[in-house]
Amino acid sequence: MRYKITLSYNGSGFNGWQTQKNGVGIQDVIEQKMKVFLQEKVNITGSGRTDAGVHAKMQVFHFDTEKELDNDFIYKINVFLPSGIAFRSIERVDNNFHARFSAKLRSYEYHISTIKDPFKEGYAYFYYRQLDVDLMNKGVAMLIGEHDFTSFSKVHTQVDHFRCILTHASWKRENNSLIFHVRANRFLRGMVRSLVGTSIWIGSGKLDTTAFKEIMKAKDRKSAGPSVPPKGLYLSHIEY
Amino acid sequence: MRYKITLSYNGSGFNGWQTQKNGVGIQDVIEQKMKVFLQEKVNITGSGRTDAGVHAKMQVFHFDTEKELDNDFIYKINVFLPSGIAFRSIERVDNNFHARFSAKLRSYEYHISTIKDPFKEGYAYFYYRQLDVDLMNKGVAMLIGEHDFTSFSKVHTQVDHFRCILTHASWKRENNSLIFHVRANRFLRGMVRSLVGTSIWIGSGKLDTTAFKEIMKAKDRKSAGPSVPPKGLYLSHIEY
Repeated sequence: MRYKITLSYNGSGFNGWQTQKNGVGIQDVIEQKMKVFLQEKVNITGSGRTDAGVHAKMQVFHFDTEKELDNDFIYKINVFLPSGIAFRSIERVDNNFHARFSAKLRSYEYHISTIKDPFKEGYAYFYYRQLDVDLMNKGVAMLIGEHDFTSFSKVHTQVDHFRCILTHASWKRENNSLIFHVRANRFLRGMVRSLVGTSIWIGSGKLDTTAFKEIMKAKDRKSAGPSVPPKGLYLSHIEY
Repeated sequence: MRYKITLSYNGSGFNGWQTQKNGVGIQDVIEQKMKVFLQEKVNITGSGRTDAGVHAKMQVFHFDTEKELDNDFIYKINVFLPSGIAFRSIERVDNNFHARFSAKLRSYEYHISTIKDPFKEGYAYFYYRQLDVDLMNKGVAMLIGEHDFTSFSKVHTQVDHFRCILTHASWKRENNSLIFHVRANRFLRGMVRSLVGTSIWIGSGKLDTTAFKEIMKAKDRKSAGPSVPPKGLYLSHIEY
């Protein structure tokens, strides 16, 4: 039987979703606890990786077991999982459901705090200089549609191609925060963080509002803005 | 010249507002940084103490100096203060202004998370069992007015009397949180945390909605409910 589990996690204490050479991956932690709890070895498959320090308001994985599981399992295992990881729900799914390949749209948020906020340390990128949100929105509007995002991808990444279809990209001011919302069929490694870094350059007048168009055309990581820290990044939704 | 500074802090990393035997007080940290920054020794006087681990969305202190200071001072010193402490504003005040004695009303919030939330660790008390907010509100309504709060005060506390005038006390459900809002002319040590512990006993049916009346009458700490952890408590406003 295949199960789909929805969870959230605080990326601060972990070295990303997947096992890494130099630290514990969230996937490992979950597999270890589930092994103890279910008394069998389980392999879980996530909707995609998140880098070290990146948070997830919503992440999804699937796994197979012959055991009958329901929400009671969620309540119980949450007690044993570290405080930074919380399972939200469990669902029986068809055997051809695949957390990664069945995902149609993924959403991310990036949080910038415009003031020093003692309650947002680890949850947002602090940026105190003036940013023009209107310019940033004019800029990111050019990302909508199908484009080649080579310029916004980490090099040495193992993918066939760099095309992504973006269905949403916008900046919003909320109290003392600036939040970037972006939705696409797929994301390349480091993509959101370099889109944000480039947006900041547009918002501060360092780049023109048409910059994204030219950077995409260049197909060169060096043409884009810098990558912002992972602590402001949240995987926020996955649509199947 | 006397100045009034408004600040917020994340209580997690500190041993309360005031210097303690076994840890660093927020007051010390601020006095040390201000000494370096202003090149003179300053003594700051807060609106009141907060216990170890308790947060402040708003705290106020005053101090005297002959230097001319404005908001520029705030921006600069924030860079040197630890990430858990942020000054918000500075204001020249009359020499008879006193952060503690001029304060007319103080407000606190207590945050309970009703689900395991990886982003609220250190910011809320996690309580998963069912609580009836209507019962809790009926209960805390009896606290409004002037009462003797001996039963809700830590023993060995150095105060003349235990009377406080409460002008507001209510529980509110917000998404997956239960938040207690309380306002009074003064608070005794440990008072909010034992009011919350008693509220939880009312909300879970362990105590009657008239419990607060009887507990206040008893003037005995042992008659009240338990004290909840400091991490859910926020000093939220001070009115002068």
